[in-house]
Amino acid sequence: MSVKIKDLAKQLNLSVATISKALKDSHEISPETKQRVFELAKKLNYTPNPYASSLRKRSSKTIAVVLPEVADSFFSLAINGIESVAQEKGYHVLIYLTHESFEREEAILKEFQSGRVDGILISVSGETRSSDHIKEVITAGMPLVFFDRVCEDVETAKIITNDFESSYTATCHLLKAGCKKIAYLSTSSALSINNKRMEGYKQAVADSGIKEKTTRIVSCDSNTEGNYKIIFELLKNKNRPDGLIASVEKLTTPIYLACESLKLSIPREIKLVSFTNLQAALILNPTLTTITQPAFEMGKAAAAVLFKSLEKTNFNLKKETVIVPSVLDARNSSKN
Amino acid sequence: MSVKIKDLAKQLNLSVATISKALKDSHEISPETKQRVFELAKKLNYTPNPYASSLRKRSSKTIAVVLPEVADSFFSLAINGIESVAQEKGYHVLIYLTHESFEREEAILKEFQSGRVDGILISVSGETRSSDHIKEVITAGMPLVFFDRVCEDVETAKIITNDFESSYTATCHLLKAGCKKIAYLSTSSALSINNKRMEGYKQAVADSGIKEKTTRIVSCDSNTEGNYKIIFELLKNKNRPDGLIASVEKLTTPIYLACESLKLSIPREIKLVSFTNLQAALILNPTLTTITQPAFEMGKAAAAVLFKSLEKTNFNLKKETVIVPSVLDARNSSKN
Repeated sequence: MSVKIKDLAKQLNLSVATISKALKDSHEISPETKQRVFELAKKLNYTPNPYASSLRKRSSKTIAVVLPEVADSFFSLAINGIESVAQEKGYHVLIYLTHESFEREEAILKEFQSGRVDGILISVSGETRSSDHIKEVITAGMPLVFFDRVCEDVETAKIITNDFESSYTATCHLLKAGCKKIAYLSTSSALSINNKRMEGYKQAVADSGIKEKTTRIVSCDSNTEGNYKIIFELLKNKNRPDGLIASVEKLTTPIYLACESLKLSIPREIKLVSFTNLQAALILNPTLTTITQPAFEMGKAAAAVLFKSLEKTNFNLKKETVIVPSVLDARNSSKN
Repeated sequence: MSVKIKDLAKQLNLSVATISKALKDSHEISPETKQRVFELAKKLNYTPNPYASSLRKRSSKTIAVVLPEVADSFFSLAINGIESVAQEKGYHVLIYLTHESFEREEAILKEFQSGRVDGILISVSGETRSSDHIKEVITAGMPLVFFDRVCEDVETAKIITNDFESSYTATCHLLKAGCKKIAYLSTSSALSINNKRMEGYKQAVADSGIKEKTTRIVSCDSNTEGNYKIIFELLKNKNRPDGLIASVEKLTTPIYLACESLKLSIPREIKLVSFTNLQAALILNPTLTTITQPAFEMGKAAAAVLFKSLEKTNFNLKKETVIVPSVLDARNSSKN
């Protein structure tokens, strides 16, 4: 019968977790304890179980990037940031798309249990309301780093941007430009980033000097045609907003098209700020004011943290939260 | 000593290729011959070599998509088309990016020799001038389908669009709008699609009634800033073109920005057609005339052909070439 971690734990009067961490050379365990564990493991001829070992060997030289889509410029730029680091390290990058489906995200993470990859970078789907599938893969010994869209309740590294502050800034920018009735166009209410952006908007309205401090959240969690209809209905209303905050890039085209159909002039009659990294923001009619996210830098930072944990056994992923700030690029769509 | 295909070939007085095809149940081999091969294989206790067998078992339930980038709307839409089919079949899709590097493309294809995936969809890099790496993986028994950017000399299924005709149509469209000096902005000269588009442009100029039938090819195979400089230099020249054909999406923003800097009015002073699927074409200033490629449909068709070959052993990938036509969407950037 082979020796197990619990046998070592019993003999040394330590917990299974401590033995496990000691065997992984964790910095959380004192050198003295590690020494005792290593000596007994050697004496009893302990060998780690093949599954855990195959994960620890990290021989696939591959990392996985799990994301909702690639049609959004944030994600395509983030991928470039990730690959810039991975290439330097001689690693392959596999991209898995969830298409905003929780079911697909679960199925993809299950795949990783087979040790196909050495580590995971993930930005969760718009449907993801539970994090058990992510915790499971981490428990199995797989290093995992969130970027942009995170699960708050999972203890691992997170590379995020300042969504609350960005949205607060965007709202103040519109208020300063003379807007009195700003609407926030939201997407998935499950997403941490959407909620933070929504809170930033609400706070800015609450802090403002405007008389009627009512906020207006419009859910635009549909496809292009569906969102066009929602925005068209919103804007054709007599009591329409005079300012819009688009929380995601894909709302940009439907907003411009709806304004065109309704002959609403941007920025004269309605002002607009959009969360987007679209290069074409510079050549739209009018040019688009954006909250520009540090997409490439966030991808790079996420990959850098992941590689740190792949290279150093005593690196603690849990401690890492990096906030890379976004920037407001004021252009004509929000001009006074 | 184990029995090999060549032993079977020798005893039956057939070629190794015939035996191999018969064992794969190929439709190219007569039922009588197959019967003879199967009987002898059984009698001699022939077992296929483990590597070939692992490929043939196709147990990974995964297909790979190899592409240059995802920042181009053609590729992000094509991925959606591919995934729509793969999901229905219960397959995972892994996306590998070459970033237009031949070296990376080679390294990625080498990975597939380990049987990590069941089949490959590929659109080659802008640097790919040789196809040995692709032929090798096909010879090893891996089904592979090209889409959009193909290697002409590799015998396998190809899903393409009518690049020559599209470019011919785009050029005629500009000539009809009054252009006399049209320039073609090219990218990688190694690419089949670039060359076909270039030839279509040349042919249209040659067939035209304009006096001076000179063509002008401008190489824009750089990054955004580099391409901006090239286009700026081209347009500030006295003898500047009065019409442009942008062969790839990424040239759109630098063209608009260069025209703005030089105070050149589109379409009054210079007219433009761009190969792109950019949704924002509809909201640019002016709206952009595009050659719109059937990206989603091409991805879908490529995946459909690949799955046919995964499901039917007697399906011949070599015979399949599908041409899905592109469409000219005339908008304000080329108005007379």
